[in-house]
Amino acid sequence: MGAAALFVIASGNARAGDAKAGRAKAQLCQACHGVDGLSKVPDAPNLAGQVEGYLATQLRAFKSGARKSEAMTLVAAQLSDQDIDNLAAWYSSIEISVGKLPGG
Amino acid sequence: MGAAALFVIASGNARAGDAKAGRAKAQLCQACHGVDGLSKVPDAPNLAGQVEGYLATQLRAFKSGARKSEAMTLVAAQLSDQDIDNLAAWYSSIEISVGKLPGG
Repeated sequence: MGAAALFVIASGNARAGDAKAGRAKAQLCQACHGVDGLSKVPDAPNLAGQVEGYLATQLRAFKSGARKSEAMTLVAAQLSDQDIDNLAAWYSSIEISVGKLPGG
Repeated sequence: MGAAALFVIASGNARAGDAKAGRAKAQLCQACHGVDGLSKVPDAPNLAGQVEGYLATQLRAFKSGARKSEAMTLVAAQLSDQDIDNLAAWYSSIEISVGKLPGG
């Protein structure tokens, strides 16, 4: 049990993204999403402060073809599993804040 | 030409979402995405300040089945075209700000 638990923890650490490496890899993403995660084109979502697990899941879905997008299919094909974790770490690490809600 | 241009403008206005109506409809979304657009569960993305056209496109993709998600397929089936535009108007109207980027 102890050894199994340790393995799980180590595996989790090994898969964790490196935000700094993700920032460098985000050169691939910046034309549409910005290095700052703010959308530069009407079809692309903001990624700044997005949920890390959601970003990684969606990148893997684009890579596998489970989620369709002409642009993202091409980009995700170039990403390793580690790249995906790193990009998710980078974009999720950008702090966003939300002000007073519109209309009250 | 003048009449055609007017039609296009009027059509654009007719399809524009009503953020206030979207805020009310967001009761359907709040358990996962919050009325404030900040994710409440690990699998759901933040929606605050998201690009309006992107939100509408993705909701329509969930509704048509082009984009797969167990939760969103169920929710999107309940949304009219106008609901979709209203929700996109609501969530995109929430202002977000991004601070200094991590690491510099």
